[in-house]
Amino acid sequence: MFETVELGRKLPKETYREEQERLRAELLKIQRRVEDDNLAVVVLVGGVDGAGRGDVVNLVNEWMDTRNISTVAFDQPTEEECQRPPAWRYWMAMPPRGSIGVFTGAWYTDPILRRAHGEIDDADLDTALHRVTAFERMLVDGGVLLIKLWLHISKKQQKKRFKKLRKRKETAWQVSEQDLKNHERYDEFRWVMSRTIRLTSTGEAPWVVIEAADRRYRRIEAAKQIVRSIERRLARPPLPSGSPAPEIDDPHTILDTLDLSQSLAREDYSTRLEKAQARLAELSRRASAAKVSTIVVFEGADAAGKGGAIRRIIAPLDARHYRVIRIAAPTDEEKAHHYLWRFWRHLPRLGRFTIYDRSWYGRVLVERVEGFAHPNEWMRAYKEINDFEGQLVNFGIVLAKYWLQISSEEQLRRFQEREKTPWKQYKITDEDYRNREKANAYEAAASEMIGRTSTELAPWTLVEAEDKRFARVKVVETLCDQLEARVVEVEKRRGDGAKKK
Amino acid sequence: MFETVELGRKLPKETYREEQERLRAELLKIQRRVEDDNLAVVVLVGGVDGAGRGDVVNLVNEWMDTRNISTVAFDQPTEEECQRPPAWRYWMAMPPRGSIGVFTGAWYTDPILRRAHGEIDDADLDTALHRVTAFERMLVDGGVLLIKLWLHISKKQQKKRFKKLRKRKETAWQVSEQDLKNHERYDEFRWVMSRTIRLTSTGEAPWVVIEAADRRYRRIEAAKQIVRSIERRLARPPLPSGSPAPEIDDPHTILDTLDLSQSLAREDYSTRLEKAQARLAELSRRASAAKVSTIVVFEGADAAGKGGAIRRIIAPLDARHYRVIRIAAPTDEEKAHHYLWRFWRHLPRLGRFTIYDRSWYGRVLVERVEGFAHPNEWMRAYKEINDFEGQLVNFGIVLAKYWLQISSEEQLRRFQEREKTPWKQYKITDEDYRNREKANAYEAAASEMIGRTSTELAPWTLVEAEDKRFARVKVVETLCDQLEARVVEVEKRRGDGAKKK
Repeated sequence: MFETVELGRKLPKETYREEQERLRAELLKIQRRVEDDNLAVVVLVGGVDGAGRGDVVNLVNEWMDTRNISTVAFDQPTEEECQRPPAWRYWMAMPPRGSIGVFTGAWYTDPILRRAHGEIDDADLDTALHRVTAFERMLVDGGVLLIKLWLHISKKQQKKRFKKLRKRKETAWQVSEQDLKNHERYDEFRWVMSRTIRLTSTGEAPWVVIEAADRRYRRIEAAKQIVRSIERRLARPPLPSGSPAPEIDDPHTILDTLDLSQSLAREDYSTRLEKAQARLAELSRRASAAKVSTIVVFEGADAAGKGGAIRRIIAPLDARHYRVIRIAAPTDEEKAHHYLWRFWRHLPRLGRFTIYDRSWYGRVLVERVEGFAHPNEWMRAYKEINDFEGQLVNFGIVLAKYWLQISSEEQLRRFQEREKTPWKQYKITDEDYRNREKANAYEAAASEMIGRTSTELAPWTLVEAEDKRFARVKVVETLCDQLEARVVEVEKRRGDGAKKK
Repeated sequence: MFETVELGRKLPKETYREEQERLRAELLKIQRRVEDDNLAVVVLVGGVDGAGRGDVVNLVNEWMDTRNISTVAFDQPTEEECQRPPAWRYWMAMPPRGSIGVFTGAWYTDPILRRAHGEIDDADLDTALHRVTAFERMLVDGGVLLIKLWLHISKKQQKKRFKKLRKRKETAWQVSEQDLKNHERYDEFRWVMSRTIRLTSTGEAPWVVIEAADRRYRRIEAAKQIVRSIERRLARPPLPSGSPAPEIDDPHTILDTLDLSQSLAREDYSTRLEKAQARLAELSRRASAAKVSTIVVFEGADAAGKGGAIRRIIAPLDARHYRVIRIAAPTDEEKAHHYLWRFWRHLPRLGRFTIYDRSWYGRVLVERVEGFAHPNEWMRAYKEINDFEGQLVNFGIVLAKYWLQISSEEQLRRFQEREKTPWKQYKITDEDYRNREKANAYEAAASEMIGRTSTELAPWTLVEAEDKRFARVKVVETLCDQLEARVVEVEKRRGDGAKKK
């Protein structure tokens, strides 16, 4: 979930100054329109301690006209507030139509803190979050535009930030003992926050996660998101349901961070692949005995090497135990159903493998980029997909998701090679070349997809696929690791069960 | 929740025959249109054991063209099904566009059974139901029309039904040992079902609860609901969100069952009122000490006696401890907020009373009937209101809801009387007379409101208000009962707490 916002993005001073000037003008303009159109806007600023929530709240108040902005930092409930149901203070703080409310520490704080400190369990957290989504849905149904910004910094960055603040007398008070204690539990917090964002990033009120370590980058990004969300909403007359989809046009994505120069020499490749395949063969037999099912998902650009990787996986498997499902345009029968239906129908029986060559992620990739799906449809698909995968994983299925990444140049090279090889020509069409023109849009969609669906239950494995050998070995080896962890867990539980008997 | 469908409604054979003929033609016609418009319809038939779910399923198959109907009675999962996540079998059974699926025993059965048998607790039930609503929302978002029929019979009727079935050899097998055991737990089931319906009757997929004891009435009602839901949906092009609102035009409502002839002689009235008010005075002091807050809601037709009843409640209260909020047209400030905001803002502090003279129910009464609220808006309001009241009750607030019922004749008499009394003239306007013309629509809306919002947490008290004295005494006495129960509970808990110390 947070991998895509730990990239170290920064903004030079000069760019910041320019952008700021432009955005301030836009913010003021859009604010007039909020008034004129009688729109109620709630900007919810959440995030990790030390990520600069207060700074973003200040920014809104500095860069916009404060006359119709109300800012509320929810802290411990007051005595007044304790005398009413918990939601009362949020209701009382709601901005009337034509104005903007900026909230920090609102309805997300309590469930996250309590779960991270172990006061409640996962089920309680989920219940609390379900209530939150029902509440937010009611607000949105009632006409509120809800903009949810999540500021993220890594554990290392948090440590650095606290240290810096504590060094100066003027800022030391900003870091409490509790903050330092929470820092110790950073990993628990990260997990809980990831779950929270997954469960509450709905179509009508999605989270926008912002990389927050660099102050300038964070401020510009937050301001941009606010402008854009309001613009989009005003452009769309009183809607079916939901806020506009957030847009991320940053050309610098997580996919750029992959080191595509990694490669494997032919001999190393043979040795390692053989070893990994032998391991997979053995693990697949144990998985079958332990009734552990496996689903493998491959996504990636055309010619990224999905087919080749799949062939390396199935080679050591018993042919009766796996199915490869190649996802192309849906059949008539499939078109007559919900878009997830065609994936449900192929779920493996216990102990078996289903390998999807492209998958349900088409909804937020090709269907999004080509405009086959309405923004409302692909926006809510993130949650639908996370829910779907949650069901698979909670049922005990091993779910391995691979994104194969190649450079644009390598893709072109492979296309041309295919055209030269008679038995590969069928693989290449004009369509493929056309898609190349939209490479940036596809990349941006893929990056957002990875951010929104790399959950604590079902993370993506990003594969540097410029070198086919490197990619194939990485796929088979990591699949073995993931499968082994689960098989060992089940075997152990069974062993314990047997002992008890 | 179920009071409105335990009225003993029946259909004479002759009417049944006529209606059946008409409805069969309509069903076939609408079915063609489902095909032509490529609509996927799921009819979910739920309900109490012995209420005739199988009969309604048969009806659909008898009266409609079975070629594009698929019927699935979900029972214990098969071995095939056990090998996949629980939702798999529902996905596999989904009707493709242009056809109708009829389901019994689907995704509601398991949570209800497990809760009624105490295998899971309330929180688990709620979590399961939240998952259900997310699943249903996804289906509806994907274009499915979801029609949910709930068949209800009372405990007595269930007993009678089982007895009858067991008498004849041909039908005895229909009643299992488990059915009889479940009958013993009828009250638990009723409670769980009521909670289930409350939490899952969403704007996009509301439940229609059908009085099911009379086979003819039940069949006609079910067929009508199916025709109507599909008609409404087809009339509305691919929608924002949600199925059309169910319509209940049955002139025979729960309000007709009230015995309006009940009255109190003047002397009895004085004695009982005085006693009840003394009791209320004492209870209010104890409530204040125990920090128990109270919210009283009054709804009812114009001149039903709401003001008079309220005066009898506040007379014995300390003036510093209560507020009466009279709900008329919203102020500008209120209009700039969500419709529930004006009610949240007046919530009492701990130990205090807030009395609402008309309330949030305006959304599903006047706003519905006068067309001020869109059908989508008032349909989802039932759930929003139930959620809101759930928060009040779970916070420990005593919530007493009174519906005051008078006959049309009595209302006219009171109007005329007001016109004659100089200091009451201000109370009567042309508007009041105009509203009388819509009396049937108001009554139908009130009846549906009571059915959908009389939850296990916050039931309505229906008050026969034809005789003012009878009504006032009933209000004060029942308020005392409800308040006392809560105060005693809190005092006891505090006492236990004190002892422990």
